[in-house]
Amino acid sequence: MKTNYPTHYCGIFGAVQVHDAARCVNNGLSFLQHRGEESCGITSTDGERFYEHKGMGLVSQVFNEETLALLSGTMAIGHNRYSTTGKSELRNTQPLRIDCRLGDIALAHNGNLTNTDRLRRELESGGAIFQTTTDSEVMLHLLARADAPLEQAIKEMMAKVEGAYSLLIMTRDKAFAIRDPYGFRPLSLGSMNGGWVVSSETCAFDIVGARYERDVRPGEIVVMELKGRDSALTAVPEEKALPRKLCSFEPIYFARPDSIIDGRSVYEARFDMGRKLAQEHPRKVDIVIPIPDGGTIAAMGYGSALGLQVHMAFTRNHYIGRSFICPTQVRRERIADHKINLIARLVKGKRVLVIDDSIVRGTTSGKRVAFLRSAGAAEIHMLVSCPPHRNPCHYGIDFPDPAKLAATGRSVDEIASRLGLDSLGYLSEQGLKDVLGPHGHCFACFNGDYPEKPPTAASS
Amino acid sequence: MKTNYPTHYCGIFGAVQVHDAARCVNNGLSFLQHRGEESCGITSTDGERFYEHKGMGLVSQVFNEETLALLSGTMAIGHNRYSTTGKSELRNTQPLRIDCRLGDIALAHNGNLTNTDRLRRELESGGAIFQTTTDSEVMLHLLARADAPLEQAIKEMMAKVEGAYSLLIMTRDKAFAIRDPYGFRPLSLGSMNGGWVVSSETCAFDIVGARYERDVRPGEIVVMELKGRDSALTAVPEEKALPRKLCSFEPIYFARPDSIIDGRSVYEARFDMGRKLAQEHPRKVDIVIPIPDGGTIAAMGYGSALGLQVHMAFTRNHYIGRSFICPTQVRRERIADHKINLIARLVKGKRVLVIDDSIVRGTTSGKRVAFLRSAGAAEIHMLVSCPPHRNPCHYGIDFPDPAKLAATGRSVDEIASRLGLDSLGYLSEQGLKDVLGPHGHCFACFNGDYPEKPPTAASS
Amino acid sequence: MKTNYPTHYCGIFGAVQVHDAARCVNNGLSFLQHRGEESCGITSTDGERFYEHKGMGLVSQVFNEETLALLSGTMAIGHNRYSTTGKSELRNTQPLRIDCRLGDIALAHNGNLTNTDRLRRELESGGAIFQTTTDSEVMLHLLARADAPLEQAIKEMMAKVEGAYSLLIMTRDKAFAIRDPYGFRPLSLGSMNGGWVVSSETCAFDIVGARYERDVRPGEIVVMELKGRDSALTAVPEEKALPRKLCSFEPIYFARPDSIIDGRSVYEARFDMGRKLAQEHPRKVDIVIPIPDGGTIAAMGYGSALGLQVHMAFTRNHYIGRSFICPTQVRRERIADHKINLIARLVKGKRVLVIDDSIVRGTTSGKRVAFLRSAGAAEIHMLVSCPPHRNPCHYGIDFPDPAKLAATGRSVDEIASRLGLDSLGYLSEQGLKDVLGPHGHCFACFNGDYPEKPPTAASS
Amino acid sequence: MKTNYPTHYCGIFGAVQVHDAARCVNNGLSFLQHRGEESCGITSTDGERFYEHKGMGLVSQVFNEETLALLSGTMAIGHNRYSTTGKSELRNTQPLRIDCRLGDIALAHNGNLTNTDRLRRELESGGAIFQTTTDSEVMLHLLARADAPLEQAIKEMMAKVEGAYSLLIMTRDKAFAIRDPYGFRPLSLGSMNGGWVVSSETCAFDIVGARYERDVRPGEIVVMELKGRDSALTAVPEEKALPRKLCSFEPIYFARPDSIIDGRSVYEARFDMGRKLAQEHPRKVDIVIPIPDGGTIAAMGYGSALGLQVHMAFTRNHYIGRSFICPTQVRRERIADHKINLIARLVKGKRVLVIDDSIVRGTTSGKRVAFLRSAGAAEIHMLVSCPPHRNPCHYGIDFPDPAKLAATGRSVDEIASRLGLDSLGYLSEQGLKDVLGPHGHCFACFNGDYPEKPPTAASS
Repeated sequence: MKTNYPTHYCGIFGAVQVHDAARCVNNGLSFLQHRGEESCGITSTDGERFYEHKGMGLVSQVFNEETLALLSGTMAIGHNRYSTTGKSELRNTQPLRIDCRLGDIALAHNGNLTNTDRLRRELESGGAIFQTTTDSEVMLHLLARADAPLEQAIKEMMAKVEGAYSLLIMTRDKAFAIRDPYGFRPLSLGSMNGGWVVSSETCAFDIVGARYERDVRPGEIVVMELKGRDSALTAVPEEKALPRKLCSFEPIYFARPDSIIDGRSVYEARFDMGRKLAQEHPRKVDIVIPIPDGGTIAAMGYGSALGLQVHMAFTRNHYIGRSFICPTQVRRERIADHKINLIARLVKGKRVLVIDDSIVRGTTSGKRVAFLRSAGAAEIHMLVSCPPHRNPCHYGIDFPDPAKLAATGRSVDEIASRLGLDSLGYLSEQGLKDVLGPHGHCFACFNGDYPEKPPTAASS
Repeated sequence: MKTNYPTHYCGIFGAVQVHDAARCVNNGLSFLQHRGEESCGITSTDGERFYEHKGMGLVSQVFNEETLALLSGTMAIGHNRYSTTGKSELRNTQPLRIDCRLGDIALAHNGNLTNTDRLRRELESGGAIFQTTTDSEVMLHLLARADAPLEQAIKEMMAKVEGAYSLLIMTRDKAFAIRDPYGFRPLSLGSMNGGWVVSSETCAFDIVGARYERDVRPGEIVVMELKGRDSALTAVPEEKALPRKLCSFEPIYFARPDSIIDGRSVYEARFDMGRKLAQEHPRKVDIVIPIPDGGTIAAMGYGSALGLQVHMAFTRNHYIGRSFICPTQVRRERIADHKINLIARLVKGKRVLVIDDSIVRGTTSGKRVAFLRSAGAAEIHMLVSCPPHRNPCHYGIDFPDPAKLAATGRSVDEIASRLGLDSLGYLSEQGLKDVLGPHGHCFACFNGDYPEKPPTAASS
Repeated sequence: MKTNYPTHYCGIFGAVQVHDAARCVNNGLSFLQHRGEESCGITSTDGERFYEHKGMGLVSQVFNEETLALLSGTMAIGHNRYSTTGKSELRNTQPLRIDCRLGDIALAHNGNLTNTDRLRRELESGGAIFQTTTDSEVMLHLLARADAPLEQAIKEMMAKVEGAYSLLIMTRDKAFAIRDPYGFRPLSLGSMNGGWVVSSETCAFDIVGARYERDVRPGEIVVMELKGRDSALTAVPEEKALPRKLCSFEPIYFARPDSIIDGRSVYEARFDMGRKLAQEHPRKVDIVIPIPDGGTIAAMGYGSALGLQVHMAFTRNHYIGRSFICPTQVRRERIADHKINLIARLVKGKRVLVIDDSIVRGTTSGKRVAFLRSAGAAEIHMLVSCPPHRNPCHYGIDFPDPAKLAATGRSVDEIASRLGLDSLGYLSEQGLKDVLGPHGHCFACFNGDYPEKPPTAASS
Repeated sequence: MKTNYPTHYCGIFGAVQVHDAARCVNNGLSFLQHRGEESCGITSTDGERFYEHKGMGLVSQVFNEETLALLSGTMAIGHNRYSTTGKSELRNTQPLRIDCRLGDIALAHNGNLTNTDRLRRELESGGAIFQTTTDSEVMLHLLARADAPLEQAIKEMMAKVEGAYSLLIMTRDKAFAIRDPYGFRPLSLGSMNGGWVVSSETCAFDIVGARYERDVRPGEIVVMELKGRDSALTAVPEEKALPRKLCSFEPIYFARPDSIIDGRSVYEARFDMGRKLAQEHPRKVDIVIPIPDGGTIAAMGYGSALGLQVHMAFTRNHYIGRSFICPTQVRRERIADHKINLIARLVKGKRVLVIDDSIVRGTTSGKRVAFLRSAGAAEIHMLVSCPPHRNPCHYGIDFPDPAKLAATGRSVDEIASRLGLDSLGYLSEQGLKDVLGPHGHCFACFNGDYPEKPPTAASS
């Protein structure tokens, strides 16, 4: 679904004082695969030296017993990457690894800085050379140039960069888990067998057998030592803590339902979005059908609230690949595509309510509606479990240009008409806030209210 | 027996008088991928010669624009294969293609013959050489040795072979769609743009934009001509038609929910199995959770019948690969595996009813129960949407030895106790019959009542 | 050099009563790689069952420790294949392996039958099915249909097939090394550690550490048993022995210089061709340069006979691959190609004599001459270490159509003029006979005198 | 030292004002493949942006039509790399490419710096971060930190680095060809169609159809502009020119025979080494045999000088791969290995003189001698076309530790005895000087007389 839906940058996972740490990170990354399918990498250390393996592709394609066996040590960090650039480039794969004044440093970054261009120009004027096109490299230069020990250098770096970053930084003797002052991207701490694990999402704790302890707080730097009798979890004072602005698209769309983000179960949040939709938009229909998989949980919440029958009339094909070769002689909208099919007899003659997690461009939604129409649905209504998207994200979500968003410059009725719907409804911003709870979230893509001044045009 | 002649799961798809037939077959096969992931192949013809491409792997791995471009012509047949032998062998890949007295012939077979050994011995005595270990090759020898035109040779072959076979046979000027006299395996006919398509399951018609016309009848030979002004669908008289014995495991487990088999929607059948389970085994529980994906639809039917909340507490990981490397220091039952995770907070303290489509060995089910137990479920009940499996299948389903089946020699209570369940229930045979409808089905794996005499021990 | 030079069909290697026989065959095949680069395969047996691995590519690409470990047993046969069909087809890879009346049989064939078409038609009329397009499959059908034990069946098969064949045939308890009655293709026997090895060329004995014993005689069937206290080399009476007709192109061009064929060292034969050329065509030149690698040894013989300085002015590039992308703006004949370069200063202003092993189409030779010309050679003469090629080969050498041969319908002077040479000379047929020795050779490609009636046009 | 900063063998090639420059560089690199087989890369520019492709493996494996098509522009530089580290690392692949104060810069380097450690420590103290383990990256940092335009920055960089470097540096509008003040490594200039090419060896000019113009002089910086009406070859004044110290191992061993280095033909130099050996060590033998391919040309020179017959008794196997699996039951020295075989009958009972280009460890030489012995050679003498190696190289040749060199601490007679030779002789240092001509060469590996102070132990 990459083509039509916004895509996310990266998942990170780290393990400290864990036996065979790289293996643990490999397993954790395999449960964070949805956050980045383009490339992945792991850097480990045994306190003596760094070991590294990176490659293009899925975790299961890049790593095997042989490559993992080379990644020795009880401390490791890893990274799944999704890049929006057309050309995949191995040199941008993370963790980035450098040698500098402070020794060997590896860094894994989830998020997007907003003042990269200005910082990069300043650093280049100071003689820095850049070997990647990532904003993450900027942070490494700032660390290497600070005239201070690493802990202090990290604080100085955080004072200079703006935007979203959940970070893992590793040296030969310790690792740091860091979240930006707004807490845009999630980052959670877990414990296992006396060691520590850090993950973009808690679902990865389940696969490694770790216990979820707490989330890294916005602005916090957690220090974990490779060795030491009572190596403890040390929280550096939160110097720049600000009103939390967790990306609301994480619980709506990106995160796995079996994750808990800042204390809120993603599954329960989605189920409650469905129930809240039922309050805001009760519809008289015969059948509720989700767009799989994004709309499934909300549809079940909606059906449960109103006593309506939910049916999985859209079925997913789990064997997606490059194999589907478009036939030319068939009108496309009347048939299945290689990702999804429709069980026509479930909707024929019925009043149908479709539930999806978002409408971005609207292209795919329009095809789904046409598919239902050709299958003989009597009425087609759609509800979306978030407000309309009308603004770009500067913090790591790859939305298309606002001009290409279905909701830009259109009323809800106009969107409905364009998609061929009998009716359309969105969850209200207040409804979403009620569901997501009291902690602060970023709703900028809905309401344009950015926590920080957006990057200037010159920086694009 | 299985070791020598590996069992076919397999899916077959054919296209006649269809523009770019191989492309159409490629797309059809991609929707039949669940019936065989080991290897696949397509043979096409333009009336002049045969074109062929086969390989180990998924349709999306074996075929691409380049290979499809070589498969010219308006007639083609294809095959997805699943083999139970540990070693994958390319020489067993189908369609099989031979040159013989009757010219070029290609054959794609879904099913399993039961008198292969005797026929093979007879043929070898007559000087035949075998280059594969498939039972399908036996049929080709019978065709080549019949002193008759192909249509007659097919009838003579059908008089000699026993067991399950849905077949596609192709020469340079026509194709045949054939189903054994019991109709063990499904085979459906569709039409598109004046041409014909044939598929193991109707879901593949949706992806190519064809219209489902009817099923090939047990014992029927459908002849489709490559050319001719009014190339018609010609049904050869049903000579050996017998009481239909469609494999009941097709609607229970094997077929896609978006398929219709012999007139019965698989989705609706599964939903009704859930409703029938509710009649036979009403349970007082707080939450119904399916084992994904097999138990999902039945769980929704069950929940709907009794007004119980269904929750997708087990979540599937869609990125399954060889990457997961077992950690040694963690007790396995307490954590997720690489295919499935559990949202613990949905079941904690709850009376839980798990619904699955079958219990074969019981190993996996036992792990799921332990997983629920460790997550704090108060009670754990399980219902299965078919009767207990206690007998081997000779017609193409690869069950383990009866000695390894969970239900062999055990009462339902004993099975429940072994799996750690508070209670266990199966759909009754009568209940399954009620759901599947008036057409005949094979229930031999449940009740040992085989339509034909099983193969003798000597044949193993 | 495939494009311009004729290419050969296949090398075969077998090992009996040899520890880890497949490994031995792998090593032997790696020294026969020049006889076929398209595909290779090995079939082994431990007396209980057959093990097999085949694939497209070089021996070093198809086999590794893992695949060899699966090929158990102390008896194995292997095959390197070159095919002249544009499309490489895995199904034609050898050893062919069948199951039939006589049990499991594997066959590896070097050579080309000349009555394949007639035999195939007869077999098809008798109900045989063909799954490959090789002539080798015909032999297997004849074996399976003979109403006799295998030894007798082989004799009957040899009475029916015509043309060239060096064969290895293996069952579960013995292997046969067979050479056609004319002995067109080489086949040698060696011994190692009490076991036997058989090879297309003796050079492969060196790599496995075996001792060359003798050549299989034309028309002979050598039987080697898997087990038995004094398993001996048993020669079946030579029933059809005829005047030997070893392909003369083997010592001239194909075989490795470190091989001995029917008692004659290939290296020495080539050196002597050079000396004989010196007798027949003494030239007054400043420098003798071979076309590498084919002309090198003859050039040294020529230089040695006349006291002329030999220089390797043409140098080979050992990294040949698909990488060379033709520039469009350069006249090709003035520059190196990706296979060969010229050290211009060695030839500038000199009278140069080029020595090559053959001229087939003449295209490449013409380019070499132009290259020398542009480098400033004063005179360019060429000598070829065999007579002019003017006729097709029916026994396994893939010459182009006679119409495309440089020598067809042209006198030697006309060829010289066409290639831009100052003079050209060929080794005479008598000279070649003198060099190759008293045993009979096939010179049909030079003189059109075929040992057997050539296949009729209808059979092509 | 070598473990940390792997030694460059490496070949470099550049093209400026050449149509489809990347294609030209690809072809050039394919003729420099012998200088580095581990990895390769090309960076091109059209004046607007940089295009890049790099990978592990041979040029023919890394590049194809598709990848070359992406490398637009009329200026490009490329690099073949050989690394001595066991683990191949993609991040060390060249050309290195950075973005910095001066814009985009790409750099390709052949040679080895000797003060890397000190420079790297200084740069790290200044805040620099290192992302590779190459000494080449040090040069890029020096360029980026110089407060000057690029031409001046290059001069300042050259004033700081010590050791061997032939360099290609490219920006969006010009390229620089640079050779260190001693001229350790070769670098030649050619012209084609109004544009310029630069290559480690002149053989690569032949394959692209360029004309050899001259060598870059030690200490020279040649500037080539992407555009401009009369873009000329501009030689910056040679500021640091010193007595030339071309690596003598280039003509002895490393360079291709079809190259000309600093005006001396490699082929002729090797032929003359053979003739000089004949002067210094005339031997009474029956046959002279080279170790292929290194000893071939010298052997021909030797035989020519003394009227002795040269025979290619050692034959090379051109299909080297991982396929050869060592048999365990055979004494290794008596048989061929996968790279070389011996034509025993050529040496049996003969007094044999073996000629090789060098003896480093002596292990392989010892095996060759044993092989000859077991083939029945009556006497075995060996001559080597250079003096004994007794010292490490700091300038890019990867010799083993002196302790492992055959000549360390041993007289020539002792070496002969150790290798099992009847006699052994080396070309004298003076003899080598006579052959290589008046220009200065580095003989440090023979005589320990290093042009610069070697790196201190602390730098390892």
